[in-house]
Amino acid sequence: MKIEIDGDRQIREIEDLAKISEAEPPVVTRIVFTPADLKARAWTKALCKEAGLAIREDAIGNTFARWIGSYPQAPAVGTGSHIDAIPNAGRFDGVVGVLGGLEAIRALQRAGYHPKHSIELLVFTSEEPTRFGIGCLGSRLLAGTLSPETAAKLTDKNGASVEEVRRQAGFSGELRHVKLPPNYYKAFVELHIEQGPILERAQVPVGIVERIAAPASLMITVEGSGGHAGGVVMPDRRDALCAASELILALEHAALSSGAIDTVATVGICDVFPGAVNSIPARVRLSVDVRDTGLARRDHVLATLQESCRATAIKRCVKIDSELLNADAPAESDPAIVGSLGRACEKHGISYLSMTSRAYHDSLFMSRITPVAMLFIPCRNGYSHRPDEYASPEDIARGTLVLAETLASLAA
Amino acid sequence: MKIEIDGDRQIREIEDLAKISEAEPPVVTRIVFTPADLKARAWTKALCKEAGLAIREDAIGNTFARWIGSYPQAPAVGTGSHIDAIPNAGRFDGVVGVLGGLEAIRALQRAGYHPKHSIELLVFTSEEPTRFGIGCLGSRLLAGTLSPETAAKLTDKNGASVEEVRRQAGFSGELRHVKLPPNYYKAFVELHIEQGPILERAQVPVGIVERIAAPASLMITVEGSGGHAGGVVMPDRRDALCAASELILALEHAALSSGAIDTVATVGICDVFPGAVNSIPARVRLSVDVRDTGLARRDHVLATLQESCRATAIKRCVKIDSELLNADAPAESDPAIVGSLGRACEKHGISYLSMTSRAYHDSLFMSRITPVAMLFIPCRNGYSHRPDEYASPEDIARGTLVLAETLASLAA
Repeated sequence: MKIEIDGDRQIREIEDLAKISEAEPPVVTRIVFTPADLKARAWTKALCKEAGLAIREDAIGNTFARWIGSYPQAPAVGTGSHIDAIPNAGRFDGVVGVLGGLEAIRALQRAGYHPKHSIELLVFTSEEPTRFGIGCLGSRLLAGTLSPETAAKLTDKNGASVEEVRRQAGFSGELRHVKLPPNYYKAFVELHIEQGPILERAQVPVGIVERIAAPASLMITVEGSGGHAGGVVMPDRRDALCAASELILALEHAALSSGAIDTVATVGICDVFPGAVNSIPARVRLSVDVRDTGLARRDHVLATLQESCRATAIKRCVKIDSELLNADAPAESDPAIVGSLGRACEKHGISYLSMTSRAYHDSLFMSRITPVAMLFIPCRNGYSHRPDEYASPEDIARGTLVLAETLASLAA
Repeated sequence: MKIEIDGDRQIREIEDLAKISEAEPPVVTRIVFTPADLKARAWTKALCKEAGLAIREDAIGNTFARWIGSYPQAPAVGTGSHIDAIPNAGRFDGVVGVLGGLEAIRALQRAGYHPKHSIELLVFTSEEPTRFGIGCLGSRLLAGTLSPETAAKLTDKNGASVEEVRRQAGFSGELRHVKLPPNYYKAFVELHIEQGPILERAQVPVGIVERIAAPASLMITVEGSGGHAGGVVMPDRRDALCAASELILALEHAALSSGAIDTVATVGICDVFPGAVNSIPARVRLSVDVRDTGLARRDHVLATLQESCRATAIKRCVKIDSELLNADAPAESDPAIVGSLGRACEKHGISYLSMTSRAYHDSLFMSRITPVAMLFIPCRNGYSHRPDEYASPEDIARGTLVLAETLASLAA
């Protein structure tokens, strides 16, 4: 069997999907359940139908497109990723795994391959935490690591709940039915851009992910005291932004001094209230994201941050609340799938690197219910989550070829 | 002549004006040239008309309501303040000076007083810097300290210019005609809440302002490098928010260690771009507000901040730009008006405190073209620029009485 990837078509499809965005090209903004997201879902489903795949959607909008195998009752081999995108994102994050999974299936069809196990493309809902504050909404529900009751009540910044918004978007049914039954999948493999600079620096076109870092996220609220920027003397102030600045720097210091390069910590949101030139900040809301391949190290960073919150609250007479939104364990890839990926690379003379993913992905949650592995391709400068995110057509086609080979061997 | 302030009516009017707001009561938000601001202007002009005052408006929307004296060609005695309000403000800032000025005029009318010099109530446009980034837009143009060309080009966050917005709001004519001719005013007196805790702590009902602190404001932009919160290791980061946090704390430290209680510095706006949970901040915009009664001390704080910008830019490999929006000199009150205010207090057995205003006001700019002084009344806890801003009816009436006496003696 000779598998041939239609790289030109793949790039055309990536470009076409990028145009379905809330922002002007080349910027991609596609927040879950907005018109852009719904349009992108319809566009993707149409491509899947064209490829002859059987489509179903669950109550949270996860989309399953199945190439039914000759043993339809056997557990399927899954692949896929997400198409939602944070504000001001690029074209490749998630999309390469969805359209790459589809092209892998089409390439196998063209090669005359017939799977025994069904091969299923999965498009996850809301991998990005933008709207509801928690990432991997779809895969958490599939894996049962997030309860349907908790998920239903999550709200966006306008106070609209997941339950309301997903129903308005046309996804009815019950969230409690989203969790997959045991042995639904035999294996799950996700193709993704690296979102870091390791492959590019090493000049290696493929990364085989052996471990996904453990993520945790918090929302911190600092309540100080507002007032006129001219009227209140410095010793009388309880400036929420000065307190927040201490926390931001303390978090950075904790991550930098963890002793491991894999520890990362980020404050991505800093909302200041009231937010006027001549008003002392009365309240600040910070998002905190901490990840590490070592659970103990990550939790040590979280504990150090909590200690800083206590110290700053006392020193500055402010109130600091922190809410832990999620704290997940790391995932280990399945050695058998990792082996398949390695053999696929070797068959085509493609060099690869075993690596860790510090970014988390839907595969992290899928690992709770099925053997998983991930396949990375390089992205320029390691950039992701920004409009100049870029992966070359050659690297995308090469990754898709390795994925197709691996799906074929897993579904045989 | 016995002057009687109608305190009940005054409070009713303050309450009525507070209802004209973009926010739900008791929160007042009245940004310049928004429908709420325009409605508040119309409401105020109707009250002035009812009091028989002759009204004119200039090209920037400053509103002049004149009680014409028996020597109409002589320079007028001015009083007044502003009715625009920052987001999430209270009912008294500015409003006490406008409605207090009007009630002082009505009280003098009721007392049978006839001014020789005209007495003019002035409602300044955009004392607050919320919309166009610079405070005292109206009084700067009246005094000629801001050029009409520069003012016309100032833009709001949507990119709309002062020139467009003021014309849309119905203020035609040429901005170059706003500057007042020499000797337009004989004197200008502004009644205002203190916006600080000094009078309340001293339990003194009136403050006579002898000096207004020198304000300066900057906009600082930190350009770092974005990316995925999981994908980029800490040593590779150029996080704009971590850099901004250093600047916020450096500014606070510089103000705290200036050696004088009058030095205050505030970062009121901290906009993070792209502002997503899992994105490293690529760009941050900070507003900086520094004030001091001593010009040298204030400029030392600004210089220290610039030094921190340079050091942080080098240390963190980020680009830091700062734009000085304004840096004004302090104002000294006119001894003759200060004398009149003191005598007015003594006549009514009202104790007073000589003080400095760290908040700046339109009087700062009026001082460039006419003798000025200000009259403060206490506000609860020193709170201002927040919904729980409060001044008691007694203090408001007392301040208005002192204002009326002073206007009468100046206009005689």
